[in-house]
Amino acid sequence: MTTLTPSEKALVPFVSVDNMMKLVHHIGIEPMLRGLADYIEADFRRWELFDKTPRIASHSAEGVIELMPTSDGEVYGFKYVNGHPKNTADGLQTVTAFGLLANVDNGYPVLLSEMTVLTALRTAATSAMVAKYLAPKGADTMAMIGNGAQSEFQSMAMKAICGIKTVRLYDTDPAATAKAARNLTGLGLNVVACTSAEESMEGAQIITTCTADKQYATILTDNMVGAGVHINAIGGDCPGKTELAPAILHRADIFVEYPEQTRIEGEIQQLDADHPVTQMWEVINGTAKGRTSSEQITLFDSVGFAIEDFSALRYVRDNINGTDLFIDLDLLADPDDPRDLFGMVQRAAPA
Amino acid sequence: MTTLTPSEKALVPFVSVDNMMKLVHHIGIEPMLRGLADYIEADFRRWELFDKTPRIASHSAEGVIELMPTSDGEVYGFKYVNGHPKNTADGLQTVTAFGLLANVDNGYPVLLSEMTVLTALRTAATSAMVAKYLAPKGADTMAMIGNGAQSEFQSMAMKAICGIKTVRLYDTDPAATAKAARNLTGLGLNVVACTSAEESMEGAQIITTCTADKQYATILTDNMVGAGVHINAIGGDCPGKTELAPAILHRADIFVEYPEQTRIEGEIQQLDADHPVTQMWEVINGTAKGRTSSEQITLFDSVGFAIEDFSALRYVRDNINGTDLFIDLDLLADPDDPRDLFGMVQRAAPA
Repeated sequence: MTTLTPSEKALVPFVSVDNMMKLVHHIGIEPMLRGLADYIEADFRRWELFDKTPRIASHSAEGVIELMPTSDGEVYGFKYVNGHPKNTADGLQTVTAFGLLANVDNGYPVLLSEMTVLTALRTAATSAMVAKYLAPKGADTMAMIGNGAQSEFQSMAMKAICGIKTVRLYDTDPAATAKAARNLTGLGLNVVACTSAEESMEGAQIITTCTADKQYATILTDNMVGAGVHINAIGGDCPGKTELAPAILHRADIFVEYPEQTRIEGEIQQLDADHPVTQMWEVINGTAKGRTSSEQITLFDSVGFAIEDFSALRYVRDNINGTDLFIDLDLLADPDDPRDLFGMVQRAAPA
Repeated sequence: MTTLTPSEKALVPFVSVDNMMKLVHHIGIEPMLRGLADYIEADFRRWELFDKTPRIASHSAEGVIELMPTSDGEVYGFKYVNGHPKNTADGLQTVTAFGLLANVDNGYPVLLSEMTVLTALRTAATSAMVAKYLAPKGADTMAMIGNGAQSEFQSMAMKAICGIKTVRLYDTDPAATAKAARNLTGLGLNVVACTSAEESMEGAQIITTCTADKQYATILTDNMVGAGVHINAIGGDCPGKTELAPAILHRADIFVEYPEQTRIEGEIQQLDADHPVTQMWEVINGTAKGRTSSEQITLFDSVGFAIEDFSALRYVRDNINGTDLFIDLDLLADPDDPRDLFGMVQRAAPA
């Protein structure tokens, strides 16, 4: 049988940015953040199963392009992501991303998805899932320092997953704070715009830092941080980019995703290579301790790991079924006879 | 200004399998193979410029999934490719692939393309470009051992680029030989179907081996190979998969793409780690010698390298301009204000 239209095997479901945004509204942002956190937590719980490799980074003067692959033995996934801090000045995103899932047993892709919006959601869901384990009991206020593209997602995830009631916003650029405050209005949070980092931290049990400079910066100095808080540091995510004064790191118990990667990219690149850290998957598994006292400073030194993207892609794959929020892409060649690729090409000749 | 339709920056041209096949006919298969060979040769000539890293492989019992990234400092590219030898039994391709080009300076993708068909074309173009340097003068006959999906592309590339007039086909499965012979009929080659590897090699100055078993196999034994031939070995392309008897390797001068990768994946995985090999880019540059006598056995131990995919994607990018052989994919989020990703998502809410 000779066919020219692609068979089902040749087609890969593709979720565009437009459809990802529709999926957020179809599910609802808070249920989606909770769903993503559940998938991420489930994958942290089976962490040891995964094929883990540090991301493969291609650095240039302007930024970095990375591939982040992983596999659980049945499904393979990877994300393409760039980080170009100066893009904003040209009206471009500093971070864009897309990702793919494939069957390990035959190598065929099963999902291609935008991941710019999805990465923002999974980063926030990861932060909040971790804060559920590490933040002091009864935490209801978060300082959100750095009011860029990630800040509202962080705020909504901390509300949806940790029950945060108040978010205190601060950015060196007041326009960024005004933008975040405007976006968060009417979504069930008390939103307080602050004019200094110190002010934003008043009464906050959770301090999230998410700034974008590609350099060693000191967003938090030692004297700003009191006892008993949880710091969620997500802006230091590449070599040479950190946000916290080293003295804070020495006062805190530090929790990480994957030490091999975090020691290169996270806040702890400022510390000795053998400085003790705890892996979050062990806290979630119950094999390591999380917060042990109300006076303790816990620090989640988050750089983002491939497994979180894998979880997010799994969530999307499982939630687009029965919707019209994807299109089928003719990405794979599927000749009637697998050895007859040339014949398939020949038969595509114009009549 | 608030817009819901994606801006130009958010769109990435996508070449589907269907459009890639149409592009082959739009350009013509022989001109396209010559064009691809020119792009590949140009990139071999500036080999030292490229960011080279061995492919990142995820192995399983059934096969392998690989990411092959590279960059010339201005453009970044990668290919996703699987290799699953048993797929054929399930009516699936053993190899499927897609690839991407992006701007290094801002990280934005500029082309997404199917690469199952394109990889077949670039592999054949690379083989023929190399044979142009290494095959004995006046070579007009090729033995094509292994008549799977790659065999007709190899035959047409050797015709288009090296002036081969006769191809002698052999496969352990006569149906594969019949398929290749049928596909090559009427395309300007003398096609001879043979019933043994020895028969296929009669009068051949170029011997191409391309078989698909994932195991150490001996497609060619030492006594089968006479003096003065060029062997184009493309089937041994992963650890544990080879086609040639070691004695042949010891009689041949061996040419490779990227030694670090070929020593793991190519025929030379059977040899000591310091066995001398010549890099093809040095032959093309004139800094190393290619064929030096008519008695010499030259061997191109080809495993495929990321730069060849990069060249092929560059060729496609440059040749789809002004055609309707691509569609624009809404792959990248592009909010009006790059810091306002959340606002963009909110504005996508149904009215």
